[in-house]
Amino acid sequence: MRISSTIRRAAQVNGNGLATDYLDRQQTWSEFASRIARLAGGLRGIGLAPGDRIAMLALNSDRYLEYFFAVPWAGGVFVPINTRLAPPEILYWLNDSGATTLLIDDNFAPLLPKLQGQMDTVKTIVHVGDGAAPEGMLSFEGLIDGVEEMPPIDKGGHELAGLFYTGGTTGRSKGVMLSHRNLLLNAIQFAGVAGFRADTNYLHAAPMFHLANGAATFCIASMAGTSTIITAFEPIATLEAMQNKRVSLVLLVPTMVNMVVNHPEAGNYDLSSLQDVLYGASPMPEAVINKAMEVIPNAGFHQAYGQTEAGPVLTMLGPERHVTDGPLAGKMKSAGQAIPGVEVCIVDEDDNEMPPDTVGEICGRGENVMLGYWNQTEMSAETLRNGWLHTGDGGRMDEDGFVYVVDRVKDMIISGGENVYSAEVENAIYQHPGVAECAVIGIPHEKWGEQVHAIVRLKEGEAVDEGQIIGHCHEVIANYKCPRSVEFHPEPLPLSGAGKILKTELRKPYWEGEEKQVH
Amino acid sequence: MRISSTIRRAAQVNGNGLATDYLDRQQTWSEFASRIARLAGGLRGIGLAPGDRIAMLALNSDRYLEYFFAVPWAGGVFVPINTRLAPPEILYWLNDSGATTLLIDDNFAPLLPKLQGQMDTVKTIVHVGDGAAPEGMLSFEGLIDGVEEMPPIDKGGHELAGLFYTGGTTGRSKGVMLSHRNLLLNAIQFAGVAGFRADTNYLHAAPMFHLANGAATFCIASMAGTSTIITAFEPIATLEAMQNKRVSLVLLVPTMVNMVVNHPEAGNYDLSSLQDVLYGASPMPEAVINKAMEVIPNAGFHQAYGQTEAGPVLTMLGPERHVTDGPLAGKMKSAGQAIPGVEVCIVDEDDNEMPPDTVGEICGRGENVMLGYWNQTEMSAETLRNGWLHTGDGGRMDEDGFVYVVDRVKDMIISGGENVYSAEVENAIYQHPGVAECAVIGIPHEKWGEQVHAIVRLKEGEAVDEGQIIGHCHEVIANYKCPRSVEFHPEPLPLSGAGKILKTELRKPYWEGEEKQVH
Repeated sequence: MRISSTIRRAAQVNGNGLATDYLDRQQTWSEFASRIARLAGGLRGIGLAPGDRIAMLALNSDRYLEYFFAVPWAGGVFVPINTRLAPPEILYWLNDSGATTLLIDDNFAPLLPKLQGQMDTVKTIVHVGDGAAPEGMLSFEGLIDGVEEMPPIDKGGHELAGLFYTGGTTGRSKGVMLSHRNLLLNAIQFAGVAGFRADTNYLHAAPMFHLANGAATFCIASMAGTSTIITAFEPIATLEAMQNKRVSLVLLVPTMVNMVVNHPEAGNYDLSSLQDVLYGASPMPEAVINKAMEVIPNAGFHQAYGQTEAGPVLTMLGPERHVTDGPLAGKMKSAGQAIPGVEVCIVDEDDNEMPPDTVGEICGRGENVMLGYWNQTEMSAETLRNGWLHTGDGGRMDEDGFVYVVDRVKDMIISGGENVYSAEVENAIYQHPGVAECAVIGIPHEKWGEQVHAIVRLKEGEAVDEGQIIGHCHEVIANYKCPRSVEFHPEPLPLSGAGKILKTELRKPYWEGEEKQVH
Repeated sequence: MRISSTIRRAAQVNGNGLATDYLDRQQTWSEFASRIARLAGGLRGIGLAPGDRIAMLALNSDRYLEYFFAVPWAGGVFVPINTRLAPPEILYWLNDSGATTLLIDDNFAPLLPKLQGQMDTVKTIVHVGDGAAPEGMLSFEGLIDGVEEMPPIDKGGHELAGLFYTGGTTGRSKGVMLSHRNLLLNAIQFAGVAGFRADTNYLHAAPMFHLANGAATFCIASMAGTSTIITAFEPIATLEAMQNKRVSLVLLVPTMVNMVVNHPEAGNYDLSSLQDVLYGASPMPEAVINKAMEVIPNAGFHQAYGQTEAGPVLTMLGPERHVTDGPLAGKMKSAGQAIPGVEVCIVDEDDNEMPPDTVGEICGRGENVMLGYWNQTEMSAETLRNGWLHTGDGGRMDEDGFVYVVDRVKDMIISGGENVYSAEVENAIYQHPGVAECAVIGIPHEKWGEQVHAIVRLKEGEAVDEGQIIGHCHEVIANYKCPRSVEFHPEPLPLSGAGKILKTELRKPYWEGEEKQVH
């Protein structure tokens, strides 16, 4: 399996079909493949050698997709960079990966002065934009214009295709090494069950640097479908693109789904072209998924669960299980079952498989699982011990093979010796009609170790106090899980570049000078 | 990717679902997985060592599927044997593969006296049937009853899973080495586009030893669906199973489709449960596919093209292209386009890629392509040269990436220096309303090298003579392609075990003492 073969096949079977649609630019698969082959030639021309890491810091565009496909075509390794990082974090990713080239768009070029002089390995900076490149940078279009199409470099299978740095919301970022096979196999495993077809029009609304959208990028290329692109997620831009471009499939993280379906204008858009909505990458509050199914009633909802290290998809809950009545009901709180070609199990601390309905660590196996962490031999061996990817997520599996993610292990709160899963508490709080957004964290407590603390943003015009939130929780979850304190947050909660609520940020003021133990 | 993982996942996600339905026996995926794990233990108990080849000579049954999954579970290599072989051919397969164990059912046990004493490597014979095993044989059920489930042997990926000997209709049989990844990847690549889902009820009507049905075996296991089984193909048994078992998907080779849809009683069966019909493995006459779409109007038809060496699927023509009107019409004569994850191209004798619409050799690439031929290093290198599988099939590709198989290169007739593709002549003859079956071969001719010769079986009650057949051909194809002689065959034409017309048999009387040149 080779990324270049995927592109060649797509151009062969759908050469005249629309490959990308962004702003006022559209290109067929033949045109797209030609630009990719020329960009690969252009990158070789400026010195890319097989195995070189090529980083990109940019918002979504057709050029971002060209980068994803041209770099492995030329034998290189892509390193997409989280768009929310601060300069020191960007520098860490660039220097840790040893990137030789950085592609950067106009949104991020202003950061360059803060990077220059501290990039140990970057020799070339490419300006991803229109018009002449600023001084000291090469022009992206200049790497394509007048360049010959190059034949793809003979790399594929288990060879490294990309480094995806993990979230970076806690601890030190690690570069997840994904091979051609990891990415393409997971795309084919997932595409067939998630609704990707040759006639799919996929909306890139989630950020391209993140592997949630990256997975869809390889799915849509594997099926030779269409990529409709918006520069960045924003509810109205998403609704407009879905309506005006007749989008048939979209992947959104839960916070984005929330912002779209609860937007006051959501009802004014014609979303009838949507056949499938994928969501995942963090827990989805029940109230939000119910609202989404109400606003987009014709679409099939698919919840995907996984992580970058899994390339990324491990399990899926399909549309037939997004029901509250009938024999297939009762599984909506789960993240679904292992997708074809993937094995999932739950283990205890000694890697013994757990009986059904018992919480342990979720593990996955399959040729979609990463090669390891870049330059982190020990951590790779630990994470991949016994041939299984240890996700670090707590979960259980029921008798029918449905996986319930109880929490990121690092988001688990230990209070008075009891494990409290923040997602469960958040689900309870979301059921309160006045709540727009919430996050539950552990804060230091002298006696219990940690105390369950809720941060809540209310819907406009709602007036709810701490006692009401806590009282509501006591009605739906066990006492020990209920928040002891509630903080009201008037602004939207801080999000990571991937759209996850940044609990690290929320925890910071409470833990300064203290160390939260990661279990 | 491991075959054992596929079974474990299926039992996890659909443990209470029906796995197999054969005669009066039904078993859930949990029960099926348990029998497989115990049979694996039983095989180890009688001495199977990792890498050992285990042969099976039997008609279709649930036990055949248990064999397919238990052998790799135990670390062995399956060698399914063509049920139409004569004893010397069986001996060649057994001895060439070095099989240590032979599983044989009651249909073939009577052949044993003709094999015994000449099997160089077979030490153990297992009786696949009910009741006590005949003398000198072990009982299949005895390898399961009371045996502990064994954990699967840690083999997968590129490691050898099975040897499938090719057709054997021409030349010496060769053992195609297929790895776990070859089989499982091709199954996932194909299942997603061919209609296999978790709720699919697949009918095993084609013979299990052949990889056309074998592909469906791995597809249905990958999706954790149901296998409904009939012992052997026969039109009424197939119609009955499709109706009574509410079959949703079936794979048939074209001769079987012909026998089913043209059966006088076909109209008496309720075939409304059929959602997808797959056909392939040899050319499908237009008249037959048109009739099939008339008899089973609700099903989507999928033509698959490939060969054992490709694991086996390379291209597919989907239901949306099985139309004679509208913008998608006009491709029904093609074998479709490369399936996701597979590359296809057409090359000349020097491996240069051919321009569109030019006939050359069809080549394929992808991780579904075989490891090579068993003990045939030179032939493997030749067939897989430049990283591409050379299929030996002549074909062309149009501007839209649709592949047209003009002929097996070995079935091509060279007459007066012109290439005549027998499939094209057969298509012309099938358009004559009096024709039930036909085959076109080359027979020796002093002046032209070969002469185009047709063998025709007429429908009952029809009276058509040689001149009428030839005259009909002159109306639809070029003169040089028309048969010069027609032979009427009152009996059904001889079929291979896979249901292909045995042209080798038909050619024999003409070529005795002469050598047909294989191009």
